[in-house]
Amino acid sequence: MADINQRIIEMVDGMEKELVACRRDFHLHAESGWFEMRTSSLIARRLTELGYEVLVGEQVCKSDARMGLPSEEALEAHYQKALTQGADPEFVVPTRGGHTGVIGIMKCGEGPTVAMRFDIDALGVIEDAGDEHRPAHEGFGSMNPGMMHACGHDGHATIGLGVARVLASLKDELHGTFKLIFQPAEEGVRGAKSIVENGHLDGVQYFLGSHVGGLRPGDPGMIAPGSYGSLATTKYDVVFRGRSAHAGAAPHVGKNVMLAAATAVLNLYSIPRHGKGITRINVGTLNAGSGRNVIADEAKMEIEVRGENTEINQYVSDYAVSVLENAAKMHGCTCEIKLMGAADSLSSDRELAERVGKICQEKLNIPVCAQLMIRGGGSEDVSYMMNRVQEQGGQATFMRILSQQYAPAHNRRFDFDEVVLSNAVKIFCAAVYDILK
Amino acid sequence: MADINQRIIEMVDGMEKELVACRRDFHLHAESGWFEMRTSSLIARRLTELGYEVLVGEQVCKSDARMGLPSEEALEAHYQKALTQGADPEFVVPTRGGHTGVIGIMKCGEGPTVAMRFDIDALGVIEDAGDEHRPAHEGFGSMNPGMMHACGHDGHATIGLGVARVLASLKDELHGTFKLIFQPAEEGVRGAKSIVENGHLDGVQYFLGSHVGGLRPGDPGMIAPGSYGSLATTKYDVVFRGRSAHAGAAPHVGKNVMLAAATAVLNLYSIPRHGKGITRINVGTLNAGSGRNVIADEAKMEIEVRGENTEINQYVSDYAVSVLENAAKMHGCTCEIKLMGAADSLSSDRELAERVGKICQEKLNIPVCAQLMIRGGGSEDVSYMMNRVQEQGGQATFMRILSQQYAPAHNRRFDFDEVVLSNAVKIFCAAVYDILK
Amino acid sequence: MADINQRIIEMVDGMEKELVACRRDFHLHAESGWFEMRTSSLIARRLTELGYEVLVGEQVCKSDARMGLPSEEALEAHYQKALTQGADPEFVVPTRGGHTGVIGIMKCGEGPTVAMRFDIDALGVIEDAGDEHRPAHEGFGSMNPGMMHACGHDGHATIGLGVARVLASLKDELHGTFKLIFQPAEEGVRGAKSIVENGHLDGVQYFLGSHVGGLRPGDPGMIAPGSYGSLATTKYDVVFRGRSAHAGAAPHVGKNVMLAAATAVLNLYSIPRHGKGITRINVGTLNAGSGRNVIADEAKMEIEVRGENTEINQYVSDYAVSVLENAAKMHGCTCEIKLMGAADSLSSDRELAERVGKICQEKLNIPVCAQLMIRGGGSEDVSYMMNRVQEQGGQATFMRILSQQYAPAHNRRFDFDEVVLSNAVKIFCAAVYDILK
Amino acid sequence: MADINQRIIEMVDGMEKELVACRRDFHLHAESGWFEMRTSSLIARRLTELGYEVLVGEQVCKSDARMGLPSEEALEAHYQKALTQGADPEFVVPTRGGHTGVIGIMKCGEGPTVAMRFDIDALGVIEDAGDEHRPAHEGFGSMNPGMMHACGHDGHATIGLGVARVLASLKDELHGTFKLIFQPAEEGVRGAKSIVENGHLDGVQYFLGSHVGGLRPGDPGMIAPGSYGSLATTKYDVVFRGRSAHAGAAPHVGKNVMLAAATAVLNLYSIPRHGKGITRINVGTLNAGSGRNVIADEAKMEIEVRGENTEINQYVSDYAVSVLENAAKMHGCTCEIKLMGAADSLSSDRELAERVGKICQEKLNIPVCAQLMIRGGGSEDVSYMMNRVQEQGGQATFMRILSQQYAPAHNRRFDFDEVVLSNAVKIFCAAVYDILK
Repeated sequence: MADINQRIIEMVDGMEKELVACRRDFHLHAESGWFEMRTSSLIARRLTELGYEVLVGEQVCKSDARMGLPSEEALEAHYQKALTQGADPEFVVPTRGGHTGVIGIMKCGEGPTVAMRFDIDALGVIEDAGDEHRPAHEGFGSMNPGMMHACGHDGHATIGLGVARVLASLKDELHGTFKLIFQPAEEGVRGAKSIVENGHLDGVQYFLGSHVGGLRPGDPGMIAPGSYGSLATTKYDVVFRGRSAHAGAAPHVGKNVMLAAATAVLNLYSIPRHGKGITRINVGTLNAGSGRNVIADEAKMEIEVRGENTEINQYVSDYAVSVLENAAKMHGCTCEIKLMGAADSLSSDRELAERVGKICQEKLNIPVCAQLMIRGGGSEDVSYMMNRVQEQGGQATFMRILSQQYAPAHNRRFDFDEVVLSNAVKIFCAAVYDILK
Repeated sequence: MADINQRIIEMVDGMEKELVACRRDFHLHAESGWFEMRTSSLIARRLTELGYEVLVGEQVCKSDARMGLPSEEALEAHYQKALTQGADPEFVVPTRGGHTGVIGIMKCGEGPTVAMRFDIDALGVIEDAGDEHRPAHEGFGSMNPGMMHACGHDGHATIGLGVARVLASLKDELHGTFKLIFQPAEEGVRGAKSIVENGHLDGVQYFLGSHVGGLRPGDPGMIAPGSYGSLATTKYDVVFRGRSAHAGAAPHVGKNVMLAAATAVLNLYSIPRHGKGITRINVGTLNAGSGRNVIADEAKMEIEVRGENTEINQYVSDYAVSVLENAAKMHGCTCEIKLMGAADSLSSDRELAERVGKICQEKLNIPVCAQLMIRGGGSEDVSYMMNRVQEQGGQATFMRILSQQYAPAHNRRFDFDEVVLSNAVKIFCAAVYDILK
Repeated sequence: MADINQRIIEMVDGMEKELVACRRDFHLHAESGWFEMRTSSLIARRLTELGYEVLVGEQVCKSDARMGLPSEEALEAHYQKALTQGADPEFVVPTRGGHTGVIGIMKCGEGPTVAMRFDIDALGVIEDAGDEHRPAHEGFGSMNPGMMHACGHDGHATIGLGVARVLASLKDELHGTFKLIFQPAEEGVRGAKSIVENGHLDGVQYFLGSHVGGLRPGDPGMIAPGSYGSLATTKYDVVFRGRSAHAGAAPHVGKNVMLAAATAVLNLYSIPRHGKGITRINVGTLNAGSGRNVIADEAKMEIEVRGENTEINQYVSDYAVSVLENAAKMHGCTCEIKLMGAADSLSSDRELAERVGKICQEKLNIPVCAQLMIRGGGSEDVSYMMNRVQEQGGQATFMRILSQQYAPAHNRRFDFDEVVLSNAVKIFCAAVYDILK
Repeated sequence: MADINQRIIEMVDGMEKELVACRRDFHLHAESGWFEMRTSSLIARRLTELGYEVLVGEQVCKSDARMGLPSEEALEAHYQKALTQGADPEFVVPTRGGHTGVIGIMKCGEGPTVAMRFDIDALGVIEDAGDEHRPAHEGFGSMNPGMMHACGHDGHATIGLGVARVLASLKDELHGTFKLIFQPAEEGVRGAKSIVENGHLDGVQYFLGSHVGGLRPGDPGMIAPGSYGSLATTKYDVVFRGRSAHAGAAPHVGKNVMLAAATAVLNLYSIPRHGKGITRINVGTLNAGSGRNVIADEAKMEIEVRGENTEINQYVSDYAVSVLENAAKMHGCTCEIKLMGAADSLSSDRELAERVGKICQEKLNIPVCAQLMIRGGGSEDVSYMMNRVQEQGGQATFMRILSQQYAPAHNRRFDFDEVVLSNAVKIFCAAVYDILK
């Protein structure tokens, strides 16, 4: 057994340059959620070459369960652009219209099924072009304005391809099935649910996901093998519609969405706290009205709610809908509420996390954090996958694999120490080997 | 003709002491809206003695059209009190349960019908007991705590009885019918509508009402024979009901009426102005909640809306109902809205006002104001009577009969120069004589 | 005298084609407020040719009293454009940087001073390009996208030039001084005050302004020689600034302008009505926040208030400032309030209106409306000029000179029957002649 | 040692009737916060008889640090009442004016100091008089209307006196000092801070407090020897003052507190959640305005804020003050904010809790709950005492001593199984003995 782990270590150590190059190529060609057309096509090509059974296009994400989809025009425009940026001509075809994401499956005889998730999308951020920002300085800053890998998913996609290569070479040593899920649109928590709804997590006994990120001050650990406490969340786009009128001559003729929207804002933030756990609510943007002397007839809002668990999140979400609808009605306006994203809360299985931690320490010589499971900030839609596996009696963990980080996540100067790539590939491979050996 | 007017003048001049005594008796025994039981019984007795056909009890105000009725307990308690304060034992009986008000009718052969309205209710004010306040000083301050004639209706009732006496003595000179309507519950605009709904203004060709009040600075006029511009209004009592809960342990379990009520307040005041005329809105009182650490489960509001005319008032009123109902729903609460009072806008007929003005100057030697018709502040439910008469093609006026006033209306030190009493009796009598001669 | 009026009539009748051509040229080259560079240069050139003393550039509008000025970049870009659209090379120079507007003065010996005002700016409207819209159909639709003469000021400028020509030819018959004020930036009520502050209305005894507009249904009148009742107004741009933070992880770290802005909106609309007259308030636009999961750190609002007179407008304006500042402070935010426009209420002098009405009927055979003075909707900054003249004991009127109108003012299909142009020129000229004869 | 614990058990078992009688006497003569005059006088008399050094009156609570004091009139009226209800004539004197509370001190030579706290106040609740409510049925329902022991402090005071008696009899076996603190005004968290500010917790090494309460479903434990997690809190009374005006005639003349209060309510509930822990906010009561047609000129609010720890509570409290002050200023009103109560968060020392748990199980045969420390709901001002002791390096615990409870705390039918009284006396005595033996 030690033999195999040793082979993993040596093989990955020999892939370091390849991993860095791959990550930088994804970084240079950053594609945000549902636009990952070039990215998906190259992943699908590579998995095919490695001998995987490969799912693409509508096979991956259930078409009408995709949330927060961009406009058809924008999707088509980017499709054309992807063609010019080196997308694989064959595998890009099924991504048209935002059917991105790839799944690679390898069946190695009898045994349990392990699924791994790698998210691949960039963010809607304009990357810093200054000389102090390494990607800019070294020439791999995003060539797609307003799309930037500012949360490390370029690394995640790279890790997934590294794992795919190593595990393919070990397939004769494995007993069971493993799946590599390359998920689109994690940002805004829009993509995972549509993969779960296509059944790809059914029958899975073990689940591994991870996020790269910053070292913890004062802790030499390079991995926290579990996490918990990320918040369940729901994202909505809201449009209030009323009737315009001249504000001086006939204010009574209008249906004033400005009043509806302001009432909604104050009452959304006023949603009573929940006695059983954390809640959050945010009206992130509000754009209303057309001119100073006109009663506003349209207002658009982007909002999100969060809860410590799914039930608490549902409480806030239901209350928010009641606030929005009645704020509109109060002023004779209408209100359209569109679901743009959603995630559950998540909690790693301690047993699986301990197992991974032990592998890191004993087989891979990768130091583990003082805390086995760390608390997640924000929200992650990997939760849908984990919860599906756990509901079926399986085990799941969401690991934090750490390295130096040069700016906060989502910042236009985000970058990370690429040493994390090979560590992560080793951890995934050794864990899968431990389960399927 | 001059003969008759002269007789009116002389007769009234001889009644001055009687008028003052009568007014002071009403002042001493002030009874606020729907409590005018002693007052009504004495008026009914007097009209009967004078030979009028007298309507009392449910004949006067349509029972279920009475607005803003006090509780049954309070009505019964006052009924018992009235019995001890000199109510007429026979005529008080039909007033039990708040069936106050009296109508006296005199038919004098063929001719038009003239109606006059005298309102008889006191206000919910605690009268000043200080020595500088004449009623206190001279011993006719209200003996009913929290009921005070602070708007001169003690005078109005007195004028009505004076007119009743004089006109009864002139009945052989008159050709037609006249009605004296002693209306309850004008304060809060609660009583007039129920009289109109009983049909008492149907078939009336001429209508005269009046209010006593302050002289106009720099104008020696003792009467403005017309008025206009008082606002249409609707009064509501509102009760929000939710669910209480512990504010620390389980705020999410409550249905918080505090949020509903605050949202309602801001949105009521925010009701868009009307391009065609004046609007008003007021949340006069709000009482909510039971304890600091309990989610409030009941809130009571007293509100009113006004509009330059009935249509504009309806706009504000409808909008207010929408605000209240949706503010409640937004927070899972309910909202009960109870109509407590209402008045229309009013406008005197210029022809009738001119006719009265001419009588005052030419027959009665009472100086008329520079402005024939003066703008009314506030609201008056005599409007329902005037509008009913005007709808049928009749003429109506609401006169301001003036004298010195010692404090603003509704103030606890309100009082007026009683000289106005005889002037007013003369004006009503001479006008009726002019119409029915 | 009849002789001279006859000469006016004949001269203007001969100018009809010239007037139409001039108006269409201005329409084609529409320039909105502070951009009227080509327009001003051509007016200045023409007045110079006609022998007027001509004021341009900073002589017209007091530089720092100009309100609602566009950005320097936009002004410079349009200046370059104006050069290519036929601006007069000499007279365009002083308009650079938004110093638009022209004043022409003619001194004809001893006598009173008459000022006339013609506003010259277009609106920020995209003109309809459809075939049913005459300017599009006949090829004089605006060539400047987003600038359109949708309120008839192309006509006003044309009338001013027509008046300039006719009166120049009559100067030997006149005794006194007359001024033609071609005002920029009337839309948004931004320009007039800066002309008044430069003293151009000081010493003026008579003032004439006008607006072209729609015929009144059922009234054959082509002119209402006076008006009243337009509302005083103040326009503000508001910027709230706070601090952004992650809405899930650290909402307490933010300074949330969304809360400040929503509180401001509800409280602005809630500003108590004024007992003495009409008030208006509008939050026309609100744009806040940068992303769904970020605490909003900047919000921009365009608001306006109005009042039946200057004092009432001041009440609303002061209250609005208090609302804005305290809504910001409440949430630890700041608030910048920038004055973008202002107008007073106005009222024509009845004597002057009657004089003009008489001239129209007796000398010009132009039918006058049933109502001598008509109520204005909206707001007009000619009020500053009129009020300045009236304060000094002079007389002022703002006339409505009427003709068929094909769409509401400010609509992208606005157009009017050009017959109004010659009527207006005749009226101005005959009125000035009547005053200075 | 076992000997002494056995003596405690036997002695307390013999006191059962006395304890029940004492508790029912306190229940019958319920006195709410700062009114505990009879209660204090009887406790002081009893401690004196038992040989304690006794502190009373201003020695106990620092006079000006008492929060939420009733009016002087109310205090004096109750003082007179207490005299008639059996207060000790000597010891009641120092309680006049609300100087309630008693401290008994026993010095037993060298050794550590232990303090115990027993709160003694009733609640502002009208006790149920129905036959199903045992206190009513058995004749010990409160004789003071609107004061009721609905939270078990009658039991707490009784336990304190029981402990006083037992420990006094053991004083020769003890080495050190113990203090019995009978605290007034725990409800509304008003009293503890003023005791701490008088220095009574200085130099204390061990602290024991407790609350009686309901058994935990499915858990036979009669004591949870520790607790944690009760929230830090601040209570405020707020008065907004504005200016009244007639709502129809002159709304602009008013300064409308209804607008200020409604704005405050919505913005208080909107205070951003804190990323580091729980927050709570409640506007429990709001009473505003004097009449339907009057602009409201006074509004009173009772509010409270809470936070997971003192820092978070301070954040909410500071934000609330900003909301209140600026909501008032926005509408030209003033705002007076009065501190009515406060508590810190608390956390028992695990070592002390384990020690007490062991004593219960091994020496007293009282079953301990599955959870050693249970999470507290609400707030407790014993926190000030505990935190003072812990700051000095001492140990403190707040125990839950359990028995059947017949209605929720603060309910008008609250009652508990009196078996808890003897259990609690045993636990306190055995714990003190363990520390001072």
